Amino acid sequence: MSRYLNAQYQALEAYVPGEQPRDQRYIKLNTNESPYPPAPSVCAAITQEDVSLLRLYSDPTGKNLKEKLAGLYGVKPENVFLSNGSDEVLNFAFMAFGGKGAVFPDISYGFYSVFGDLYGIDYTQIPLKEDFSLDYQDYCGQGKMVVIANPNAPTGLSIPVDAVEQIVASNPDNVVVIDEAYVDFGGETALPLIEKYDNLLVTRTFSKSRCMAGGRLGYAFGSAALIADLEKIKYSTNPYNLDRLTLKLGEATVDGEDYYQKMCTRIQETRDWTKEQLESMGFQVLPSQTNFLFARTDRMDGQELYLALKARGILVRHFSNPRIDQFNRITIGTPEQMETFLTVIKEILGL
Amino acid sequence: MSRYLNAQYQALEAYVPGEQPRDQRYIKLNTNESPYPPAPSVCAAITQEDVSLLRLYSDPTGKNLKEKLAGLYGVKPENVFLSNGSDEVLNFAFMAFGGKGAVFPDISYGFYSVFGDLYGIDYTQIPLKEDFSLDYQDYCGQGKMVVIANPNAPTGLSIPVDAVEQIVASNPDNVVVIDEAYVDFGGETALPLIEKYDNLLVTRTFSKSRCMAGGRLGYAFGSAALIADLEKIKYSTNPYNLDRLTLKLGEATVDGEDYYQKMCTRIQETRDWTKEQLESMGFQVLPSQTNFLFARTDRMDGQELYLALKARGILVRHFSNPRIDQFNRITIGTPEQMETFLTVIKEILGL
Repeated sequence: MSRYLNAQYQALEAYVPGEQPRDQRYIKLNTNESPYPPAPSVCAAITQEDVSLLRLYSDPTGKNLKEKLAGLYGVKPENVFLSNGSDEVLNFAFMAFGGKGAVFPDISYGFYSVFGDLYGIDYTQIPLKEDFSLDYQDYCGQGKMVVIANPNAPTGLSIPVDAVEQIVASNPDNVVVIDEAYVDFGGETALPLIEKYDNLLVTRTFSKSRCMAGGRLGYAFGSAALIADLEKIKYSTNPYNLDRLTLKLGEATVDGEDYYQKMCTRIQETRDWTKEQLESMGFQVLPSQTNFLFARTDRMDGQELYLALKARGILVRHFSNPRIDQFNRITIGTPEQMETFLTVIKEILGL
Repeated sequence: MSRYLNAQYQALEAYVPGEQPRDQRYIKLNTNESPYPPAPSVCAAITQEDVSLLRLYSDPTGKNLKEKLAGLYGVKPENVFLSNGSDEVLNFAFMAFGGKGAVFPDISYGFYSVFGDLYGIDYTQIPLKEDFSLDYQDYCGQGKMVVIANPNAPTGLSIPVDAVEQIVASNPDNVVVIDEAYVDFGGETALPLIEKYDNLLVTRTFSKSRCMAGGRLGYAFGSAALIADLEKIKYSTNPYNLDRLTLKLGEATVDGEDYYQKMCTRIQETRDWTKEQLESMGFQVLPSQTNFLFARTDRMDGQELYLALKARGILVRHFSNPRIDQFNRITIGTPEQMETFLTVIKEILGL
C-alpha cells in the first residue's frame, strides 16, 4: 500500500478469487468453471477478420447482444444490462442502490461484503439457519437493499420464486438483487417478476452454464429505469466495458442454447451421482441446485481434506469462516474427473 | 432514472463516447482509432483452442502480459497494472487517490470531470493558455491529485518530460497521473521518472498506437506501492477484469513491436501531410503529437462544418464547449481516407 491511498480504502480487504496455482497440473474443481467447452459454433465464431476489426471500438451499447438476450428470455432490450462478468454488475448495483444500507446472508458469495466495505455501505449479514437454508422472512420489509444469491453459493441451496416475490414485494422502496449465477443448474428464476416489480434486479453470468468464465460476460434483467441507472454508472466509469470478441461470442452463445441446455443436464446428472457416491462414504452433502457440491465428513477436518486433495493434484475450495470450515466446495467436472476425485477421496480417508 | 438511484448520482452526467451511427457507412475520423489492423501475427493469434479454453477463468494477475510489458519498457512486473482499457485505470486512480481533491486542465479528456463528479471529488479545472498550451507551473505544488493528458486531447499538444518532472517533484504528497494514451505519436514519455518518484502514475492504452480499441486493454506504470493500491481497488470491484483472449492478444501485440512502430510513423507522416493541406486551405491547425488534428477555419462555424462532413459520410468529433466549439478533432486515417476528407472539405467550403 502507498501513503497516497485514500483513507477509506486503507483497511479494505479485497476479494480473494479461487487459487490458480501454476506449480503443476490440477484437476480444477475450485472455481465453478464448466468442464465443457463453449458450443462448437462458438469455438468457431472468431475469425481473423474479427481480430483485425479490433482496431475499432466495440459497440458500447451492446445492441445486438441485448436484442438476442431479450429474445431468448422474452424481455425487451431496455430490460437488459451487459457487464464485464457478473461481478461488474454486482459492483455497480452496490454502488448505485446501497445508499440506505444492505442485507445479505452471512454465508454467501464473499464479494458482497467487499462491495459493502468498498462503498462504506451499512450492511448486515443475516445468519442462514442451522441447516444453511434461508428463511425468506428474514429479508422482508428490511428497508435496505437486499442481495441474495439464488441458488446460494457456497451452499448450493435455493429458495422458490414465491419466496423471492415476498421479499421483493415487501421492500418496495429498495432494490432487491437476485444473483442467479447458478440458476441454470436447477434453480427457479425470478425473471418473470421484473414485469411486475420495478425494484427487482436479476443478475446472470456466462461463466458457469455458458462455459465462458474466461470470456468475462455477465448480464442483468430489471425495469428499464433500473437498467438506465446501471448504464449511467457504466458510462461514468468504463463505457466500453465489453470488447468486440466477447460481444460476438456472447451472440453466438445465445444461438447455441440447445448445446448449453444439454451441458447443464449432463452436469446435473454428474452432480447427483457424485452426491450419492459421497453420501455412501458417509459425507454430509447439501442438496445442490448448482454446478458444485458443498460437503463435509466426520472423518477428517475440512481444511485437512482440502490440503490432502491439493497434494494429490485435485483443487477444491475451502473457506475459513468457522461456520463452514468443515466443508469443502467441489465443482462438478466431467464424470471421469469426478471418478478420479472419488477414488482419491477414498484413498485419503482409507476407505 | 429510477427512484432507487443513490442521491449522489442523480445529477451525475455520464461521459458521452464518440457517436457510432449505424444509418450508413462513414469514414470514421471521430474516435481516434487506428486505420490499420493489429499486426498480422496478432490477427492470427486466436485459435479455436483458445476460444475452447474460455471455459476457464482468465489469470486475474495477468502475469504473462505484465512480464512482457515490463520487459519491453524496462521496468519490473510489479510496476505494471493491467486494465480494461485505460478508462478503467483512470477510474481507479480517481477513486484511490482523489481524496484531497484534483486538478486538471479545462480542455482535456472529458472523462476526468465525470470521474471527479462520480466520486464527489473537489476538483479544479485549470484553464489552458489562450493558445491551448499548458503552463506546467499551474500544476506545481497544488496539494491535490494532478491529472494531465500528455499529449493532451483534443488539442494534440504536449509538454516536455522536464515539465512533467517539475509537477511530480512539487507535489510529493499527491499522485500525479500522466495519461499517455497518445504518447507514441510523438510525445515524450514520463516513464523513466517512475523509478525516482513514487507518486507518479503513467497510464497507457492499446487502443490507439496498438490498433486495438475494440480489445479493451490499458495499462499503467508506477511504483510498486501505487500499483498495489490499484490492484486492491481492482480486486474489490472486478478481479477478472481482462478476458483470456484479450490477455493473449496483448502478449502477441508486445511481440509485434516493430509493426506498431512502423504504423505510428506512417500515421505521423499522414498527419503532417494532412496538416499542411489544411493550412494551405487557411485552416488553423494546432501542432499535434497525436493521431489526430485539432483544426478550425474562419470560413465556417465548427459545428456547421462537422454537420456538413457528416452529411457527406465523414465523421469527425465536435465539442460544444464554447472555448473550442470552432474546432473539430480529426482522427488521422489512411492517406486515401485523408485525401477524401480533404476533397470533401474543399467541396463544402467551395474551394
